[in-house]
Amino acid sequence: MTNDFLDKMAAETLDSASSRRLHARILEISEIGRTENQGSKRMGYSEDELAAKNKVAGWMKEIGMRVRTDGAGNVFGRYEGKDDSRVFMAGSHIDSVPDGGHFDGAAGVITALEIATLWHEAGYRPKYSYEVVIFSDEEGSRFGSGLTGSRAFMGMLTEEEINKYRDPDGQTIDDVLSAIGSDREQFMKAEGPDHPIEIYAEVHIEQAKQLEQKDLPVGIVSGIAGATRTNVTFRGEAGHAGSTPMTERKDALVKASEFISTLPEVAKGISQEAVATVGKMDVKPGGVNVIPGEVNLVVDARDIDEDNQARLIEAVARHAEDMVKDSPVSVEVDLTTRVLPIPVDPEVISKMEESFKRQDLLPVHLPSGAGHDAMSIGTEFPITMLFVKSIRGISHNPEEFTHIEDLSKSVQVLKDFFENY
Amino acid sequence: MTNDFLDKMAAETLDSASSRRLHARILEISEIGRTENQGSKRMGYSEDELAAKNKVAGWMKEIGMRVRTDGAGNVFGRYEGKDDSRVFMAGSHIDSVPDGGHFDGAAGVITALEIATLWHEAGYRPKYSYEVVIFSDEEGSRFGSGLTGSRAFMGMLTEEEINKYRDPDGQTIDDVLSAIGSDREQFMKAEGPDHPIEIYAEVHIEQAKQLEQKDLPVGIVSGIAGATRTNVTFRGEAGHAGSTPMTERKDALVKASEFISTLPEVAKGISQEAVATVGKMDVKPGGVNVIPGEVNLVVDARDIDEDNQARLIEAVARHAEDMVKDSPVSVEVDLTTRVLPIPVDPEVISKMEESFKRQDLLPVHLPSGAGHDAMSIGTEFPITMLFVKSIRGISHNPEEFTHIEDLSKSVQVLKDFFENY
Repeated sequence: MTNDFLDKMAAETLDSASSRRLHARILEISEIGRTENQGSKRMGYSEDELAAKNKVAGWMKEIGMRVRTDGAGNVFGRYEGKDDSRVFMAGSHIDSVPDGGHFDGAAGVITALEIATLWHEAGYRPKYSYEVVIFSDEEGSRFGSGLTGSRAFMGMLTEEEINKYRDPDGQTIDDVLSAIGSDREQFMKAEGPDHPIEIYAEVHIEQAKQLEQKDLPVGIVSGIAGATRTNVTFRGEAGHAGSTPMTERKDALVKASEFISTLPEVAKGISQEAVATVGKMDVKPGGVNVIPGEVNLVVDARDIDEDNQARLIEAVARHAEDMVKDSPVSVEVDLTTRVLPIPVDPEVISKMEESFKRQDLLPVHLPSGAGHDAMSIGTEFPITMLFVKSIRGISHNPEEFTHIEDLSKSVQVLKDFFENY
Repeated sequence: MTNDFLDKMAAETLDSASSRRLHARILEISEIGRTENQGSKRMGYSEDELAAKNKVAGWMKEIGMRVRTDGAGNVFGRYEGKDDSRVFMAGSHIDSVPDGGHFDGAAGVITALEIATLWHEAGYRPKYSYEVVIFSDEEGSRFGSGLTGSRAFMGMLTEEEINKYRDPDGQTIDDVLSAIGSDREQFMKAEGPDHPIEIYAEVHIEQAKQLEQKDLPVGIVSGIAGATRTNVTFRGEAGHAGSTPMTERKDALVKASEFISTLPEVAKGISQEAVATVGKMDVKPGGVNVIPGEVNLVVDARDIDEDNQARLIEAVARHAEDMVKDSPVSVEVDLTTRVLPIPVDPEVISKMEESFKRQDLLPVHLPSGAGHDAMSIGTEFPITMLFVKSIRGISHNPEEFTHIEDLSKSVQVLKDFFENY
């Protein structure tokens, strides 16, 4: 027994021609940028990302899809529908973090293409034309800022932001674009769909354990959480750890610790989906024998509902202020980032539930705590997302794994969804 | 109004010739290594520390004291007593931290010398010969390890330890010793007193606010706390701050925070003098949007009583283990340092109380949480320490200040103590 990707792939059971094709394509894409420990390294706007896009574009062309690339490197394959005035769109990204797995992103692209492939084999034409999309640089490992392709597509990127981009080798966005035969002008006018998007669908691995715990292959994403960041600074007074009696202290870390240890209750009090995390903190002056005079920390707080998100931000701030009441320690709270959550229309969820039932699947709802390309599209068009079970919830790691049969179920349910939309 | 040292010194009221001499000498020593903001910079084994020692040695010689320097640079001035078979010893250090004040150390040396000076003026001879000592490099700012001179004097330094010494300029102990005309051989055999020490006395500024709060000039140190260091590591599981529900987390920082926020109660439960501090912690992996998988922290815990110190160490470890009971987070506890507390003999305290009463001073007891040269001597000989009121408890800072009249009171009471011993 080994945990390596290739062994795990070899052990998969594949019950249909479609499953065998998904399996073969995930394997073929995995060869591009595969690392020594069988992980994936396909950075945004790298030659490997481009090669993977070209590989998928080849499969698109095999079934007669028209392929175009926009100025941001996003690749679109179009499968003609009965009505050409609007489009169904489905896809994800094909880049990865530096030592990532082979499913985050690729799963969404390969399953979206599988739907068109099955339609092509059956001679089926959907209601609207169907576009399979590969968005560039979703992970943002290159410039430290994600969703690059999908944000460019939706006109959400400013010159100001992209001027700041520098990759670890010091390359600018202009250097990177010229390497893929584009330039800044084309990039900035990667101006979105040529036809209105009726709905955008994205299949993605769950990157958490809820489906595994429920023993379900696929779930319906109920909304995509918006991340907020709040800087919290506790200020007390540094002092000698030996000569200052316990009763005379203004210990900023003790107060910060009270705040952190009770923060989970604050999130739980808002909603089932609300999360609040302190992942980074700085204790000053930081000497082993010095009472901390100042602690800076960042609260990452998210909810999939806009009102709940607002209540969560407020509750985090009030909680910090409550900590220092009647205390010699003071606190400063500063909301630095607020990305609005992207809801999924209840009617869309209801239609997806019908598809689950028709496919003999139990429709379960899951919030998406992480960001996805669907967030960009969702700022203007309806979206739907499916999560597929992640083994042990592991992601951004060579051990990331999702069973092909589960991917195949997401294909069946999403295909049903489009056919009955 | 200004807070600068020279202005504060100019505003002092001086009611006696002895006070005026203390004032003049503190001022004169303060000129050596005085910083731009009127602080003090006399690092251990620097030219400034040597110049300050030589200045004091000059004053010793003025009253006929015999002066010698040992291989560790410690300076001893001997005032002959009636009996030469044993010695009374008093003193402290004259080095400072890089931007320190003018009282930490110097106060103990100058007051010890003042006692001999007053005896000389009165033609008085104490029961035993009286040695005023200036220990080298108490602060340890140079090699990151303190009490260098007093530990060398007591034979407590090993070659292994001093071989590791490197100052910020990369100088070794050998470089430093050759600059003061000594060498490693002489240093290692800075072999202590030529006569048994009947008692060692050290006057030191309090570096805390208890005397100020009680509005008392001088207090009796009831014991010197021994510092202990315990490394505590909480291990959970790193995870995505967005996609991991609150109920599924193994957040090492939340557990560490519960530990820190309740640690003060653990110390308070041991004794009035017990202190426990977390001044340094490391949160891993440290990403804003990553649930902490590991937290390393150091607990600095002290008590002046050996049994209480043992109970405190045990209580800290048990507290860490209690935190993770029925929790998916684990903990590892490792005691890395234990310096035994140095008690003060109750009979010595009782004699000192008599001196306080004779000098119309209220005898108050204070624990010493910080380490002092008396700790080294106390490993073998009886010691006594007096604390003198520190303005606002500030120390290791140019704003450190102690009134000369309060120093003068410490001279009176310690002189009385030796005269009646």
